[in-house]
Amino acid sequence: MDSKPLHVLLVEDNPNHAELVGFALDDQQVVNAVHHVSDGQEAIDYLFQRGDYAEPDKSPRPHLILLDLRLPKVDGMEVLKEIKTSHDQELRRIPIVVLTSSDAEKDTAAAYDYQANSYVVKPVDFAKFQRLISDLIYYWLVWNRLAA
Amino acid sequence: MDSKPLHVLLVEDNPNHAELVGFALDDQQVVNAVHHVSDGQEAIDYLFQRGDYAEPDKSPRPHLILLDLRLPKVDGMEVLKEIKTSHDQELRRIPIVVLTSSDAEKDTAAAYDYQANSYVVKPVDFAKFQRLISDLIYYWLVWNRLAA
Repeated sequence: MDSKPLHVLLVEDNPNHAELVGFALDDQQVVNAVHHVSDGQEAIDYLFQRGDYAEPDKSPRPHLILLDLRLPKVDGMEVLKEIKTSHDQELRRIPIVVLTSSDAEKDTAAAYDYQANSYVVKPVDFAKFQRLISDLIYYWLVWNRLAA
Repeated sequence: MDSKPLHVLLVEDNPNHAELVGFALDDQQVVNAVHHVSDGQEAIDYLFQRGDYAEPDKSPRPHLILLDLRLPKVDGMEVLKEIKTSHDQELRRIPIVVLTSSDAEKDTAAAYDYQANSYVVKPVDFAKFQRLISDLIYYWLVWNRLAA
């Protein structure tokens, strides 16, 4: 891993879940900044640097995207599709981990079909949730090699 | 995670590395069988159940593929491409983790462009290698939800 600051984009409409992820991420040494958006349109605006996120300072490119599926305005599956079919090659290479309450087979299958890098179901138990986030961040930002 | 037996396909031509991965996997409770092939053509034969692997009993579908890049006969990048562009939807959904000695930027970028789910560089230190394999298996086969 190189030493550049690592950014995570968290796309999550449930404030309790966002807080849980935030708490779990606070324990991590490797993440420098978490950017939280709470609907699918905001995620797209952030990633394509449009609207409120037109200024690059406000929307540094993330090294990892944690994406909920059930989202207001634009659904998470649609966000996934827009990113992974984008003409922006560097955007397409960012790992996207779907982080959802849904363990429905059709969601899992569709997420892989739309090129999610990974699909994780939120544990109900908080201690387990924290362990998941800790393992997930370590795997994706320490072990996994990002495209430059 | 459901309780079906979990299979890993390891595509690795270096017998020392294959042995290291084997040792590290032996410590894992979650993996039921590791199938080792040592070149790209054998990987394709296994996954498409052709040639020596025509019998389904000899080539159970893996839940995770660990793919080296520099391989005899058919290159790892070509194997990745064949799987991720296959007409077989269920095959395309299997997570593929590139596990390589190469940390070249062009390899990382190309692997993501060919839809590798993740890209991991083999640590030189054995203890670190073991920890990587342990974390990797736990992440992909316990936390990560596979398509049914």
